[in-house]
Amino acid sequence: MAAGGGDDLKLLGMWASPYVLRVKLALALKGIDYEYVEVDLKNKSELLLTSNPVHQKVPVLIHNGKPICESQIIVQYLDDAFPDAGAPLLPSDPHDRALARFWAAFNDETLVKASNQASWGKTEEEKAEGEKKVLEALEKMEIGMRECSKGKPFFGGDDVGFVDVMLGGFLAWVRATDAMRGVKRFDPDATPLLAAWAERFVELDVAKALMPEVDKLIEFAKVLQARAAASA
Amino acid sequence: MAAGGGDDLKLLGMWASPYVLRVKLALALKGIDYEYVEVDLKNKSELLLTSNPVHQKVPVLIHNGKPICESQIIVQYLDDAFPDAGAPLLPSDPHDRALARFWAAFNDETLVKASNQASWGKTEEEKAEGEKKVLEALEKMEIGMRECSKGKPFFGGDDVGFVDVMLGGFLAWVRATDAMRGVKRFDPDATPLLAAWAERFVELDVAKALMPEVDKLIEFAKVLQARAAASA
Repeated sequence: MAAGGGDDLKLLGMWASPYVLRVKLALALKGIDYEYVEVDLKNKSELLLTSNPVHQKVPVLIHNGKPICESQIIVQYLDDAFPDAGAPLLPSDPHDRALARFWAAFNDETLVKASNQASWGKTEEEKAEGEKKVLEALEKMEIGMRECSKGKPFFGGDDVGFVDVMLGGFLAWVRATDAMRGVKRFDPDATPLLAAWAERFVELDVAKALMPEVDKLIEFAKVLQARAAASA
Repeated sequence: MAAGGGDDLKLLGMWASPYVLRVKLALALKGIDYEYVEVDLKNKSELLLTSNPVHQKVPVLIHNGKPICESQIIVQYLDDAFPDAGAPLLPSDPHDRALARFWAAFNDETLVKASNQASWGKTEEEKAEGEKKVLEALEKMEIGMRECSKGKPFFGGDDVGFVDVMLGGFLAWVRATDAMRGVKRFDPDATPLLAAWAERFVELDVAKALMPEVDKLIEFAKVLQARAAASA
């Protein structure tokens, strides 16, 4: 039985956004029903602008009329607001919770930023520097996997948890940009735990159902690149 | 009676750090006993390097031998690990919790970054641009104050909460840099709610006891500026 049945739940998203995918994954893992609204980011709707006036970005979850913004905050909100919908994504032990929050923050502040620099750096040098930072961040993330999983298959242990959803939201983009740049991040030789984790994650039912197709992301990235080059 | 009596609690800090002050404020508000260890950031101790190998920064809280890093994560940990020590700093209502997390993140990602640019920008132009961004961020934070406080004296309502501690940790530095640059942020004309909040915050017993002296911060900032100029 789907949770959230008595609630009005709307997710404002954009199909290619890894941040939106995190929220879709969390909602699916919890079995919470919702209405999905695809937003045109080039022509932002009144609903998006009034729901997230500060950042004007997706994802935004609107629960019984009240908006919640930012993917990490939305996923924590789902744990708090739907305690009976599946297992919580954050661990129950306070120290494990802190570890999960630490590595989720590390992912966004370090790995995601480095990946963006590798993809969208203004010069080839900047991109190469970004690629180097990505590898350093992945080596640290390997430590995070060891600390959080304690030898089990996922950051969350036996089951998918908060950090899995945060990092897993980016896997389709990792594969797309790997293909475009002829590199392989999540390399079994460099980061064996993470590489095995990524193989495991993409085989999950929720991942197979929700991850965008890599070819479509590549096509979309080329459009973005052409647009960036035209405006440079 | 002080909480945390049966626990071994150590805080690695540095006297001038606003991030460390957040943790000191939270510990004091909760009445939790701890040992404070001042760290020399120019000559980092083995304890700091092994406790926070990823960022090698303070604050680090070590609880019964287990380190917790990053001020926002430490303060949430205190709520989770010491549920009987005073009122929780995060609100109990899920939507209010999400709002508190949103504005705390906004503070760190927008206001703190803009303030750093205003203080440490490489050129006068960069600094002026930082100052402009500070004012824009404060205008948004004024909205945050309205949303979180719902007309009460603090972001946390009648009592000091998560966002109060996050923003309050920076007030001594705001006053120091205001004095150095001849500006006044938290201006009653521009952001009346925030200005009144700041006056209220510095009068709290915990703030009076823990905030570093503004004159000492100014002296310290001048040393840092001279060092930055010498290495530029």
